[in-house]
Amino acid sequence: MTVPTTAAIDELSEELSPGSVLTDPEILASYERDRELWASAVAPLAVVRASTVEQVSTVLRWATRHSIPVVPRGAGSGLAGAANGVEGGIVLSLEAMDQVLALDPTDQYAVVQPGVVTAELKRLAAAHGLRYAPDPGSAEFCTIGGNVATNAGGLCCLKYGVTRDSVLGLEVVLADGRILRLGGRTVKDVAGLDLLGLFVGSEGMLGVVTEVTVRLRPAPRSVATLVASFDELAAAGRAVAGVLTEGRPSMCELMDAPTLRAVEEYRPSGLDTDAAALLLVQTDDGDVEAIERCARACEEAGAGFVMTTQDEAESELLTMARRTALDALEAQGQWLLDDVCVPLSAVPDLVAGCQEIGTRHGVTVACFGHIGDGNMHPTVVFDHGDIAAESRARRAAEEIARLGLHLGGTVTGEHGVGLAKRDLMAEQVGPVHLDVQRAVKEALDPAGILNPGKSLG
Amino acid sequence: MTVPTTAAIDELSEELSPGSVLTDPEILASYERDRELWASAVAPLAVVRASTVEQVSTVLRWATRHSIPVVPRGAGSGLAGAANGVEGGIVLSLEAMDQVLALDPTDQYAVVQPGVVTAELKRLAAAHGLRYAPDPGSAEFCTIGGNVATNAGGLCCLKYGVTRDSVLGLEVVLADGRILRLGGRTVKDVAGLDLLGLFVGSEGMLGVVTEVTVRLRPAPRSVATLVASFDELAAAGRAVAGVLTEGRPSMCELMDAPTLRAVEEYRPSGLDTDAAALLLVQTDDGDVEAIERCARACEEAGAGFVMTTQDEAESELLTMARRTALDALEAQGQWLLDDVCVPLSAVPDLVAGCQEIGTRHGVTVACFGHIGDGNMHPTVVFDHGDIAAESRARRAAEEIARLGLHLGGTVTGEHGVGLAKRDLMAEQVGPVHLDVQRAVKEALDPAGILNPGKSLG
Repeated sequence: MTVPTTAAIDELSEELSPGSVLTDPEILASYERDRELWASAVAPLAVVRASTVEQVSTVLRWATRHSIPVVPRGAGSGLAGAANGVEGGIVLSLEAMDQVLALDPTDQYAVVQPGVVTAELKRLAAAHGLRYAPDPGSAEFCTIGGNVATNAGGLCCLKYGVTRDSVLGLEVVLADGRILRLGGRTVKDVAGLDLLGLFVGSEGMLGVVTEVTVRLRPAPRSVATLVASFDELAAAGRAVAGVLTEGRPSMCELMDAPTLRAVEEYRPSGLDTDAAALLLVQTDDGDVEAIERCARACEEAGAGFVMTTQDEAESELLTMARRTALDALEAQGQWLLDDVCVPLSAVPDLVAGCQEIGTRHGVTVACFGHIGDGNMHPTVVFDHGDIAAESRARRAAEEIARLGLHLGGTVTGEHGVGLAKRDLMAEQVGPVHLDVQRAVKEALDPAGILNPGKSLG
Repeated sequence: MTVPTTAAIDELSEELSPGSVLTDPEILASYERDRELWASAVAPLAVVRASTVEQVSTVLRWATRHSIPVVPRGAGSGLAGAANGVEGGIVLSLEAMDQVLALDPTDQYAVVQPGVVTAELKRLAAAHGLRYAPDPGSAEFCTIGGNVATNAGGLCCLKYGVTRDSVLGLEVVLADGRILRLGGRTVKDVAGLDLLGLFVGSEGMLGVVTEVTVRLRPAPRSVATLVASFDELAAAGRAVAGVLTEGRPSMCELMDAPTLRAVEEYRPSGLDTDAAALLLVQTDDGDVEAIERCARACEEAGAGFVMTTQDEAESELLTMARRTALDALEAQGQWLLDDVCVPLSAVPDLVAGCQEIGTRHGVTVACFGHIGDGNMHPTVVFDHGDIAAESRARRAAEEIARLGLHLGGTVTGEHGVGLAKRDLMAEQVGPVHLDVQRAVKEALDPAGILNPGKSLG
């Protein structure tokens, strides 16, 4: 059945509750793209705000009937363009599905709707003496649904894994409107193919997540923090190897010289801006001596300055420097945030390579990130409105991703593919992998309505 | 192209190296089934022993050409009948692909062929000061390929997760003979759909694993062990909740009264056979006081007897009691080992329910397992050759699995579906989930040659 698009939109409005289908041009424009600024984006025909799983099902059945593309969207905080509007499509917003449906402190899980803001879930868990581990940099404004769609990470991954490791169950609406329930409330489950894992990180291409059962864990026992500065990147790399053996850190972050200078300028706190790298390590369990063993590992690796603290407020202050890195770089100009993950031993080469690439293209490349699991965020910074610099920045970013591949890594550790990494992902995984991905996509969405044209082209 | 089966087998013999295709009836009989004893099994037409990825590819292309079912097989140590021979099919053995291809202590990974025995990889890692975490009960004779195929677990899962959590990369041969490479050497990777996770636990239905890159971790720092006995199952359940909050145990195992009596009879070591349950807890990091905090949690929950040790040899001795549980039960008769995983708070009800089911059916049900993640192994024991008891035992096992479902759990936490749990899995996940599983299977194996008739019917 083909009807003119406006008639189809009217039909959907009638099927859903009043006010669910928005077509005001200003609203449409505000749902055009996520936080990635360069990928192609089109204002959607309509923004549909679903508030129940039945409504999501209605929308997808309608979309299949009319062959209208659907772009599912949480908070729009993604960094790969995966939630950008597509030609002739609608955006299906899950923001209004923002309820915590259950929280069980005994069995340590919560059941939440996809529109729950990540930091709010973290605070709720903390109020019950528990922790929801995933902590993407955007935790204060991103939503659980988007975290599931991208398999989001954060500073926690080193010890607690990615979002996948905190998801026990999902409710998903399939392209044809059927409702699929995956997993449950148990920590282990091998009953059938791991569809749960397949849907996590699938960027809205296989179904729309309408409910998430998340795993909660005991709250941190005692937090201790270490800061160490290094004159050489290689020394910082050696230190990390030692730190991972000596402690079982809950955080192991690196900031390189350009990042340090930006952070110190943005919010002065006495950071050593002459250092080649600053390492930030945190432990959170009962092994109170671990942080001192990590400190010795840093000294043995050649650290210039090492300081540790068991004080929670001081720990918070120290991690703040790392957490403001992107804001600090934003204050210096337009940014292009990358997301390369390499084997641990390759991180010093990656950071040095990034600086060389920046120099060659006449842009600043600041490197910070989760060095403990090799996942760095080289960030290209250039002047707002400088078209020539923007073009150089994009070339630099592409070279950085290729350097990651060359070092045995991946072009995206936690931000996802979307539009931004589509071609690089294809280069990384090769034609057989792409074929299998497409076969799976076609098996689940034969009409191709779910977020078409993104990661899989 | 259809040729008589014997001609097809001859054709394969010519394509592979001499001696790769075995048709001796005694050998065929020995490859008929895995360690699950009741599922249907058929002697294969041939056993093909592959020694290279190219040979595996040749076999699968040949099988697709002739529509001949292929059952991939490691050590045959599975407990669900997933490796059982099927009508008109061959068994493809990966035992000969048993080389460790690389081990990198800096980046903490190893590259192994599927036929490497799990315990050998663990010993090799230990020799480098590292640990390969997964430790299924069959570690001394099972292989990594089978562990990947079933997403095997063990006593380690509580802290280190299942096999999936230790797999960084895979090489897989697809049904049409193409070679697919998944993942790599990085800890995080979101480049494309999570096909790696999809293949882990797919029980030979989506492809044949020919190489595995496993994640290694630092070796244990210091091992401490706790044993606590309880007069009531509910008290043991409460103790576990406390233990998980107070420590970050690397092991948390339960043995119920029937298990304790069997173990003490099998190898007397002074176990309290009057207790309703014995809890065994181990920690392995630098938090040396954790075990004492766990001991207090046990006392507060009402433990009768609590003992802790920091001595490694003594720890080994204590865990031995748990590790011999199945052997001890085997000494009492024929066993039928189940694998139910429930939310933590439901374990006492599960164990009590198992004993009630046993009493009602006139069979012994001994319950032991990984209580820390709710994954118990209720084991039905009955006299060898007692046909009536066997039939009662099978009914009891089915009721136990249904009790697990009723308690919000899964019919298999780590052993897999195969033939043994096929119908129960279908009952658990429902028709939409099954449809999606089948759609994925068909997308990857349109000719249906890979382990047909198993989990997905």
